[in-house]
Amino acid sequence: MNDIAADPSHPRYKSLLLRHLLEQAAEKGMLAASALIAHGRGEAFDYLLGEQTTPSALIATQQAAARLMSAKRPVISLNGNVVALAGREMLLVANALGCPVEINIFYRTPERMTALLNHLEDIKQELNIDVEILGANPDARIPGLEGPRANCTNKGIFSSDVILVPLEDGDRCEALVAMGKFVIVVDLNPLSRSAIMGNLTIVDELTRFAVNLFAAIGEDYELQDIDNDALLSDAHAQIATNATKR
Amino acid sequence: MNDIAADPSHPRYKSLLLRHLLEQAAEKGMLAASALIAHGRGEAFDYLLGEQTTPSALIATQQAAARLMSAKRPVISLNGNVVALAGREMLLVANALGCPVEINIFYRTPERMTALLNHLEDIKQELNIDVEILGANPDARIPGLEGPRANCTNKGIFSSDVILVPLEDGDRCEALVAMGKFVIVVDLNPLSRSAIMGNLTIVDELTRFAVNLFAAIGEDYELQDIDNDALLSDAHAQIATNATKR
Repeated sequence: MNDIAADPSHPRYKSLLLRHLLEQAAEKGMLAASALIAHGRGEAFDYLLGEQTTPSALIATQQAAARLMSAKRPVISLNGNVVALAGREMLLVANALGCPVEINIFYRTPERMTALLNHLEDIKQELNIDVEILGANPDARIPGLEGPRANCTNKGIFSSDVILVPLEDGDRCEALVAMGKFVIVVDLNPLSRSAIMGNLTIVDELTRFAVNLFAAIGEDYELQDIDNDALLSDAHAQIATNATKR
Repeated sequence: MNDIAADPSHPRYKSLLLRHLLEQAAEKGMLAASALIAHGRGEAFDYLLGEQTTPSALIATQQAAARLMSAKRPVISLNGNVVALAGREMLLVANALGCPVEINIFYRTPERMTALLNHLEDIKQELNIDVEILGANPDARIPGLEGPRANCTNKGIFSSDVILVPLEDGDRCEALVAMGKFVIVVDLNPLSRSAIMGNLTIVDELTRFAVNLFAAIGEDYELQDIDNDALLSDAHAQIATNATKR
C-alpha cells in the first residue's frame, strides 16, 4: 500500500483503499485486465456523483433488500471486482437471505475461477458462515448469449426469480431481463446499458451499496412500484450539477 | 486482442484498441497498476464529453502548437500511459519541434524506466527520427515536491519554458506552474487539479489530441491570450448536457 492509503485522514483514503484491494486481487489472479479500467470508469462517475450515496440510491437499495427478501429464489451474481471489493458483505447478505451466490465472470478462465472461489472460501471461514458458492460447474446457459459468457448454473442464476448483479455487463443484463427475472443492477454509470436495462438500478459505489444493503436486510421496507427511469434521472441531474459546480 | 477489438466497424472499436495498447504495455512492464484505473477514469469522462474533440479543445490544441513553436526551450513530458497510447505521435511532434522528450513517471522503478526507454527507442528506429529522450539520469529536482517524484533533468524539464504534460498528476502540475513555466495540460477531467492548475488545458482524449497537435505543428496559428477557465467551463457544460440527454 502506498503512503497515502495508510492514512485514514487523507481525503482520498477510501478511494485509495479500494484501489489497493483491487491491486491485491489482481496479484492473486482474480481480475481480468479490463477490471481495473472498469473500476476507473466507476471512480470518475462516483466523483461526479459527489462520492456519497444519494437519497434516491438509498431508497433504491432498501427496495433491493425488500425484493430480495420477498423472492422465492434469490441469487447474488459475483464477478471479480465484486468479490475483491465487497465479497465479505455479499456473503453476509447471502447468509442473511439464505440464498446462494454464483460466480459469473465475463472473461472466464479456470485460474480466475479458482482464485475467486478460494478468496470467497477464505472469507466464509473467517466469518464462520455457510453460503453455497455456485458457478464452478455450470450446467445451464443464459439464452441469447454466445460462448462462455452464457454459462450459469441451473440451481442458481438459471432458476432464480430475483437476481442481484452488481457491475454487470450490458448484454448479460439484457439477457437476464429477457428471461423474465427481476434484475437488480448496481452501476455508477447511470447512462450504461446495464443501468438502463435493469428493473431496479442502484447508482452507487459498490462498497457503500453493500453496507447499506446489509443494513436493510431484515428491515421491513414495503415493496413499491419501481420507476427506474426516475432513479436514473436523479443520477443524471446530480452529475450535471456537480460537473458545472466550481 | 479480443474479437471486438479486431473489428473496426464495432462502435467501441477505438476504445477497445486503446485498452489493448494499454494491456500490451502493462505486459511489457511499462505501467503502474494505477495506470489502468486512470485510463478508466478518462474513458468515463470521454464518454460524457461525447467521445469527440470539441471545438474549444481543437482551438486549445492549436494554441498549444503555437506556444510550443514559439518557446525557447520546449519539452514534452511522457509518462507510461502517454508512451503506450501516443508515444509515436509525441516523438513525431518533438522531432518537428526539435525538442527533447523526458520520461517523467510518478511511480519510478528502474524496470519501468527501462521498459519505457526501450519502447521509445523502438519507435524512433521504426520512424528513423532522432529525438533526445531524457529522464533516465535525473540531475535536478522540481522544487516543492518530495521523493523521486521531484526528479527531473536539468537539460529538459528543469530548464524548459514551455512544457507539455499530458495526463499529469495535480501536485506535479502545480509545482511546474510555480516554477514559472507555461504548462500545457491534456486531461479528460475538466474538474481535476491538473486541469485547473495548468496554463492551457486541452480537455480531450490523448490520442485525438496527439493527432491534432501533430497536424497543427508547422501551421501559423497566432498566439492568443488563454482564458483557461472558459475552456474548462465549455467542457463542464458539455458533460452536463450529455449526462442529462437520453
